[in-house]
Amino acid sequence: MTKSKVFLRSEIDAMEKNYRVNLINSIHGFKSANLIGTRSIHGIENLAIFNSVMHIGANPPLIGFIQRPASVNRHTLENLMETGFYTINAIREDMIEQSHQTAARYPEGKSEFEATQLTPIYHDDFKAPFVGESHLQIAVKWVENIRIMSNDTILVVGEIMAIYLRNEEVLSNDGFINHEQMNNVAISGLDSYYKTQKLARFSYAKPDKNLEQI
Amino acid sequence: MTKSKVFLRSEIDAMEKNYRVNLINSIHGFKSANLIGTRSIHGIENLAIFNSVMHIGANPPLIGFIQRPASVNRHTLENLMETGFYTINAIREDMIEQSHQTAARYPEGKSEFEATQLTPIYHDDFKAPFVGESHLQIAVKWVENIRIMSNDTILVVGEIMAIYLRNEEVLSNDGFINHEQMNNVAISGLDSYYKTQKLARFSYAKPDKNLEQI
Repeated sequence: MTKSKVFLRSEIDAMEKNYRVNLINSIHGFKSANLIGTRSIHGIENLAIFNSVMHIGANPPLIGFIQRPASVNRHTLENLMETGFYTINAIREDMIEQSHQTAARYPEGKSEFEATQLTPIYHDDFKAPFVGESHLQIAVKWVENIRIMSNDTILVVGEIMAIYLRNEEVLSNDGFINHEQMNNVAISGLDSYYKTQKLARFSYAKPDKNLEQI
Repeated sequence: MTKSKVFLRSEIDAMEKNYRVNLINSIHGFKSANLIGTRSIHGIENLAIFNSVMHIGANPPLIGFIQRPASVNRHTLENLMETGFYTINAIREDMIEQSHQTAARYPEGKSEFEATQLTPIYHDDFKAPFVGESHLQIAVKWVENIRIMSNDTILVVGEIMAIYLRNEEVLSNDGFINHEQMNNVAISGLDSYYKTQKLARFSYAKPDKNLEQI
């Protein structure tokens, strides 16, 4: 016998803070799981986990992420604004513990690469470090920060400059990337990691026409 | 023998349009899968799938989604701005085909609820329809639209007014929602649906302390 549960707004407002944080951070569903790599103008490599990397546009290829005001990952934003460059790296199943650990508040000058034993690598002359263990690495150039006044958060928007895939077989013929073939994970809430299994890929929806699996 | 693949920016810019759309829409990883329900001031119920619903803030509880300029889901934005209210409903595994079909461009006045046989239901006196088949339904009040100039898209921000869970057992003791227990799905790209399996939930990361599974 299942029992339903309703939370009215007055109850949400009255919740103990951590309960509300867990509930509201997990309510909308699954999120992407990426590590953002930067290097400060003093040469210190920084690495931070983000669950908010999102699509902004395809042409030009724009990618965004949300920076919260209270985040411990401030170095990411400082570095990418100073240098103009950062990397976005997909998190695989065997990297989740190290990736989660990048959120720790390390002393100034300590690199999360060193602390977590994830490997900084460089491609061509791009000025920010990629994560060697990731099978999907993106070189990004900073474009703009958009202030979300409702909550004093920042949407950081960048242009994709290059994409590095470990194995071309994860690409479908039409450009679609099969993340599950790389064992890339999804996140829910602030701290939960998931593997995925494809159910279906559907054709473009049209009225009075049945969907096909593609 | 795996073969790697690099896309430089010049190659991305030169891609055939659909290839680029599929690549750039799938590059950042998994997304949430939700149906947004609205009712026009003329009483027509609208339902549209969105893969961009995201966390904005916990106190007050704010939730956002991206509206693209060329989207066929314009009715959603029109209705919620006219009435001030909308619902966000998690998509379960057995709803993916109907949910994908809501993206079809139906004739003016035709409700996607009717077209897809998903069931509009109402809770209390809330003015927008929820999706009966969803096990996680959120009542939302519109707050503001934020223009993302880089790409002429809009981030629509709303306040959570109530949360309806079919089964309270999906809630952890600390407020975290276990989407996989509802069979809620994740999306990748524009058209691919995934079931998930939990790998781990980790404790808050601290320097020089090993993570624990919680």
